[in-house]
Amino acid sequence: MRTVYHLPLSPFSRKVRIALAEKNLDFDLQVEKVWERRAEYLTLNPAGQVPLLIDEDGTAIADSGVICEYLEDRHPEPSLLGGAPAARAEARRLIAWFDLKFDREVTRNLAFEKVMKRFYDMGEPQSERIRAGRQNIRYHLDYIGYLIDRRNWLAGDSLSYADLAAGAHLSVLDYIGDVPWSEHGTAKDWYARLKSRPSFRPLLEDHVAGLPPPKHYADLDF
Amino acid sequence: MRTVYHLPLSPFSRKVRIALAEKNLDFDLQVEKVWERRAEYLTLNPAGQVPLLIDEDGTAIADSGVICEYLEDRHPEPSLLGGAPAARAEARRLIAWFDLKFDREVTRNLAFEKVMKRFYDMGEPQSERIRAGRQNIRYHLDYIGYLIDRRNWLAGDSLSYADLAAGAHLSVLDYIGDVPWSEHGTAKDWYARLKSRPSFRPLLEDHVAGLPPPKHYADLDF
Repeated sequence: MRTVYHLPLSPFSRKVRIALAEKNLDFDLQVEKVWERRAEYLTLNPAGQVPLLIDEDGTAIADSGVICEYLEDRHPEPSLLGGAPAARAEARRLIAWFDLKFDREVTRNLAFEKVMKRFYDMGEPQSERIRAGRQNIRYHLDYIGYLIDRRNWLAGDSLSYADLAAGAHLSVLDYIGDVPWSEHGTAKDWYARLKSRPSFRPLLEDHVAGLPPPKHYADLDF
Repeated sequence: MRTVYHLPLSPFSRKVRIALAEKNLDFDLQVEKVWERRAEYLTLNPAGQVPLLIDEDGTAIADSGVICEYLEDRHPEPSLLGGAPAARAEARRLIAWFDLKFDREVTRNLAFEKVMKRFYDMGEPQSERIRAGRQNIRYHLDYIGYLIDRRNWLAGDSLSYADLAAGAHLSVLDYIGDVPWSEHGTAKDWYARLKSRPSFRPLLEDHVAGLPPPKHYADLDF
């Protein structure tokens, strides 16, 4: 059986969990408290981060981007990148958009400040960063709306890793109640479609001790 | 004809230039002074960065990682990722290593501080960042040595994007005289092999006005 080492509120772990489920690949989940820097884990993954995939043959693959490309190489159907090179490039452009730019401008300012700093014992959240994150998320929700006005899913006709990346980040922010859905109807409709997929369901059951999600988090009709 | 918008000392542009040459694909080069934020360029590439590839059919592809995957999809031979999924994952792991980790720990501390800050008019270089870059590069050269003691090229038997990524960063640092080759013989031998490939030759002819490279920069027997 495959194993995914993860953290419940890591958007990168969540992307990989949805990807495996969309490709109908079974896996066990293992929480890895990366801040403990467990020696055995560092042997498997010197970078020390989550997610890490251990495939059925024991191959260890780290980095969510690398894992997603690996899954697409090994299990091309159903594709989560698309067929034509230009379509795949568009999906990859948007994956980078959400996993780098959105992560830097929004996720780190909100989820990292409000949640992860506790685990890493890095002091109090900085209110100016939280303000910046709350401002920045609006531009990104508008951008999602712009794309969805023109396309069925973010990168084109079909669901792709771009939707999974964006949805994974937003699901973490939704868990801490930081997504202003009511002001971004098109993005909300897109997220509702994503959230109702069976691949997304396990994420909605995640609970972090001492940090309950808001009531609408698991609600498909939020 | 394809066009690559680039900057001579951008490691990401350099990686794409070597990649196209290794795949025997012709292209024109166009310098894009990204700090001028030219409106026409921003239309082609809203992220405003280099490199940008305009393919023969007019398709615009931004982000060096996305461009490299696109080239591999459209022109799979000769492959710069490898065949088996696990081999491709190892190449991609090392691409991320050099384009994210090495970039953050070394290239930005040295090339950005010493060169790019001038163009962006961002003030004086910070000496503590330069010191950190000079310290960090040694660990990375050791890591290259560790890999090359075990493999022909960084990711395995064949040349891959991992070598191109590492070589592109090091070539920029070599241009500003910041690679302590004499203390890292195995990494030096690997770089000498890379440098002598025809794909690398045009990089050795780059000259930035007001910033001449050291004499050994273009020397194949450095």
